[in-house]
Amino acid sequence: MKNILNTINAPKDLKNLSIDELQQLAHELRAFIINIVATKEGHLGASLGVVELTIAIHYIFNTPKDKLIWDVGHQAYGHKILTGRRTIFDTNRRLNGISGFPNIFESEYDAFGTGHSSTSISAALGMAMAAQIQGDTKQQHIAVIGDASIASGMAFEALNHAGVTNANLLVILNDNAIGIDPSIGALKDYLTHAKNGKELNRDNIFEALNFDYSGPIDGHDLPKLIHELKRLQNVEGPKFLHIVTTKGKGLKKAEEDQITYHAPGKFNAKTGDRITSTNNITPPKYQDVFGYTIIELAKKNPKIVGITPAMPTGSSLKYMIAEMPERAFDVGIAEQHAVTLAAGMAKQGLIPFCNIYSTFLQRAYDQVIHDVAIQKLPVIFCLDRAGLVGNDGATHHGVFDIAYLRCIPNMILYAPMNEVDLRNIMYTAQKGLNAPIAIRYPRGLSESIHWKKPFKNISIGKGRVIKEGNSTAILSIGTIGNIVNFAVNKFDEKERDKVGHYNMQFIKPLDNKLLHEIFSNYNTIITYEDGSVQGGFGSAILEFAAKHEYHPKIIIKGVPDNFIEHGNTKELRAVANIDEKSIFNTILSTL
Amino acid sequence: MKNILNTINAPKDLKNLSIDELQQLAHELRAFIINIVATKEGHLGASLGVVELTIAIHYIFNTPKDKLIWDVGHQAYGHKILTGRRTIFDTNRRLNGISGFPNIFESEYDAFGTGHSSTSISAALGMAMAAQIQGDTKQQHIAVIGDASIASGMAFEALNHAGVTNANLLVILNDNAIGIDPSIGALKDYLTHAKNGKELNRDNIFEALNFDYSGPIDGHDLPKLIHELKRLQNVEGPKFLHIVTTKGKGLKKAEEDQITYHAPGKFNAKTGDRITSTNNITPPKYQDVFGYTIIELAKKNPKIVGITPAMPTGSSLKYMIAEMPERAFDVGIAEQHAVTLAAGMAKQGLIPFCNIYSTFLQRAYDQVIHDVAIQKLPVIFCLDRAGLVGNDGATHHGVFDIAYLRCIPNMILYAPMNEVDLRNIMYTAQKGLNAPIAIRYPRGLSESIHWKKPFKNISIGKGRVIKEGNSTAILSIGTIGNIVNFAVNKFDEKERDKVGHYNMQFIKPLDNKLLHEIFSNYNTIITYEDGSVQGGFGSAILEFAAKHEYHPKIIIKGVPDNFIEHGNTKELRAVANIDEKSIFNTILSTL
Repeated sequence: MKNILNTINAPKDLKNLSIDELQQLAHELRAFIINIVATKEGHLGASLGVVELTIAIHYIFNTPKDKLIWDVGHQAYGHKILTGRRTIFDTNRRLNGISGFPNIFESEYDAFGTGHSSTSISAALGMAMAAQIQGDTKQQHIAVIGDASIASGMAFEALNHAGVTNANLLVILNDNAIGIDPSIGALKDYLTHAKNGKELNRDNIFEALNFDYSGPIDGHDLPKLIHELKRLQNVEGPKFLHIVTTKGKGLKKAEEDQITYHAPGKFNAKTGDRITSTNNITPPKYQDVFGYTIIELAKKNPKIVGITPAMPTGSSLKYMIAEMPERAFDVGIAEQHAVTLAAGMAKQGLIPFCNIYSTFLQRAYDQVIHDVAIQKLPVIFCLDRAGLVGNDGATHHGVFDIAYLRCIPNMILYAPMNEVDLRNIMYTAQKGLNAPIAIRYPRGLSESIHWKKPFKNISIGKGRVIKEGNSTAILSIGTIGNIVNFAVNKFDEKERDKVGHYNMQFIKPLDNKLLHEIFSNYNTIITYEDGSVQGGFGSAILEFAAKHEYHPKIIIKGVPDNFIEHGNTKELRAVANIDEKSIFNTILSTL
Repeated sequence: MKNILNTINAPKDLKNLSIDELQQLAHELRAFIINIVATKEGHLGASLGVVELTIAIHYIFNTPKDKLIWDVGHQAYGHKILTGRRTIFDTNRRLNGISGFPNIFESEYDAFGTGHSSTSISAALGMAMAAQIQGDTKQQHIAVIGDASIASGMAFEALNHAGVTNANLLVILNDNAIGIDPSIGALKDYLTHAKNGKELNRDNIFEALNFDYSGPIDGHDLPKLIHELKRLQNVEGPKFLHIVTTKGKGLKKAEEDQITYHAPGKFNAKTGDRITSTNNITPPKYQDVFGYTIIELAKKNPKIVGITPAMPTGSSLKYMIAEMPERAFDVGIAEQHAVTLAAGMAKQGLIPFCNIYSTFLQRAYDQVIHDVAIQKLPVIFCLDRAGLVGNDGATHHGVFDIAYLRCIPNMILYAPMNEVDLRNIMYTAQKGLNAPIAIRYPRGLSESIHWKKPFKNISIGKGRVIKEGNSTAILSIGTIGNIVNFAVNKFDEKERDKVGHYNMQFIKPLDNKLLHEIFSNYNTIITYEDGSVQGGFGSAILEFAAKHEYHPKIIIKGVPDNFIEHGNTKELRAVANIDEKSIFNTILSTL
């Protein structure tokens, strides 16, 4: 049987295929995704679940003229492969390769960039309203959104607005009952009810919001999908198609363990068995240090609760949810709610650890200011995946948090240099600070296997002297301090003696006493952070210097003023000139 | 008839009143609110609408042990008066007086601060879950939320979560079909349908989300309210009571013109007639300059559209909505959706002016980064009410925008010094910048009646020389430049000659050429902004100086690192040391 996939270089190549050929194509596309992701890594389950849908949409609709937006774009691998990127798909998520998410700069078929969830309906509605204004009544606008994403507030806002327009909008709910972790909330129960054979009644939620609802239908039944999409193509106004799919469809292990196979790393393409590292012992992930430490603390302090918006596995709060389900909560993709829920709990005397990825806390910025900081409530924010996150790229780097949190009064802002710091600041914070604190730490492995040491109190606003010097002082914040150490140690002794290194620990409050010492003893200061240089930690140091009228040479190093694309973290540090080599050279230039 | 209100110093004083006496109290409370607001100004309509509800809740429930949270707290005047603040209610919204919103530092009866909308359900749920964890099964948690606020995404997130808990939560929907402007969206239509005698069917939206729904009932029928609240007190788990009220109830003019009487300024307490200023001609509000200018531009440029999230009157986009309803949109309290909708429109080639109050753009921070800036879409953000806003206080000041926007790559950030600048930057932006721009301007009157001048192009990244000097240079941004001018003009000629003043116009990109000139010619630099000094405009200037190794004395002035309370804007500028007198003294200290 000749391979069909290899003949598809654009959606137009689908148009003349028979239903049987499309079915074969689905089979080939699924195998192609599995084979590449097995060796090159990436997101697996979501794209396997929408293989038939992807083919059906591109078969029926006239992309790229018709606008197709994939919510949380990691379901878009099939879409990328069918729209001219098959031969470069093995560069997915790599430096200078294609993005793991739809990207408007990469292809005209990627109508809108989608790394964060729940944006697709708003964007598609905007395009649909634009088409109306431009007098185009034929253009179609399709948002494909999962059941976890549609429960996020932003998606509701868009549905609520769309329902009072007559925009040419088709929302396809890809209902597989799981996001990265299982979906949460009353809406999920409602949808499950519908899928279990009990029809949603005539006036269901989506019809109440004025959508023309159809479904649920089997999202792996290609002929049925094609038939229904063809019908909907001619229905005017906002339409809602509910399809039911299986995440990981077509790879048995991925269907059985949908959480692990969301992004499984390398695996055997035939058996699905994961290929785990043969390394000996590695340090624990920062995530696990958080996950185990919160349990350890919560066992002794009954006031502690844990909250995550839809990232129990990613954040490792899952351990506490399993062990103390009455005190640890996954609230779904609902960062805004998560933060204010935490504020309400804190107001009642609990001590909430609210674990949110740095990039996702952007979704709850107002709540941090309005509900937590103004009221000085002692919520403990654990900002996971702060700094450059690697292959997820521009949409996911946690590089703005220092700038956007530093301006908020009452906030304490801390960055551990290692896993022991992380444990100790968690220990310190839960004893009660009478103010909110944000603790930012990176994705991935920590620094040492010897992480489980007895807790020690951390003095708020106290920096750490790593090494004294007399000419150039480096002020680092967070784990980049370890890279600075490596760089400093590459100098010969004579030069090394000139270099001081201070890991400042707190961005806010700053250690003024230590800073006065440093500014009195060095003629050059270099600051290092893995965050935006605009308004970040380095700026805080400049503000200190200006206020106290110190005038050394100050060099600010961090993530520059442009969006950093995908690649592994080491590569991206080099792109941003905050890798070991760049640090060495910068220090050298000052000696 | 003896006055009852004067005997109520705490909710316990209500408990022994008869229904007739409670009815009389409602009458007195309404009159009290009208009389005070008539002379002291403030929010009127919302609190008049919930007089009966306020009495009924405090009569039935055991506040402050039971937790009562008023969403968008300007409906809480009656609550404040009944909970011990009657005699100081005439200090409402004034410097050192009580806050116009619930405030946890002001009263134990204010369970949670609520200035922004749609937070109440999350906060109440957090408290209810905390009570469960603490073993308290009796404590009640009540969120009172309007129909405009409940349509915001955050409220949906909270409902969706609450529905899968058995928390002791009562959500009361105060349905009056209006926020500040009439409510928007499909949910509003759905609720209206329900109120028009057609019962919501058994499985309505709120029941679908697992709430025990009752209503709609007449929210001005005190006996019925009391009866229903008493019943609900004994229902376990999440409950939803739908009441129908009239905004402005009890003052005919306020009922008839609900938008104007949301916050009518001074008025005749008997007739309701507004007392308008007898001043001759005043400069137009910045809001109206925006509102008229966008129409002027849109008439010539068919690509222009206008978007506001629920602030058509406040932003003055209402003029365009009236004149060009097909191109100007109120999307409801949905800032997240508003921004991504604008992004979708921009992607399709339209030029969206997205007008959002500075403090409310905090709600859409992620969307600005993820949907607009990463994709470099030319959305024009008009940030109304930037800087200190006055009597609304800490929750509403727009003082973080410079810091939180400056760190975002691709953004242009501009602050007009006057109404002509505002018009010209709007003119310049709609011609196409190939990047997003944020234009921040304050609440209230502009600088001159001569605002309607022919459009001139503004060079992006170009500052303005106001006056040359030779010793101290002031770098101002935005309208505070006018106050700097007044301060500078108070010096005698000899001193004045030493002072240079530069209104930098753009925070990003900075005018490097002008800055090089300034830093080459002055030994002291003072920066002025009406935003946070942490990471703001002053920090940008410090970053420039550090990068180019200039070492003058630099003094950064702006809003300090604490939350500024309410008061009039002039008073608050003095609190922040950015009023004319403080500016004069600061300059003087450098000469």
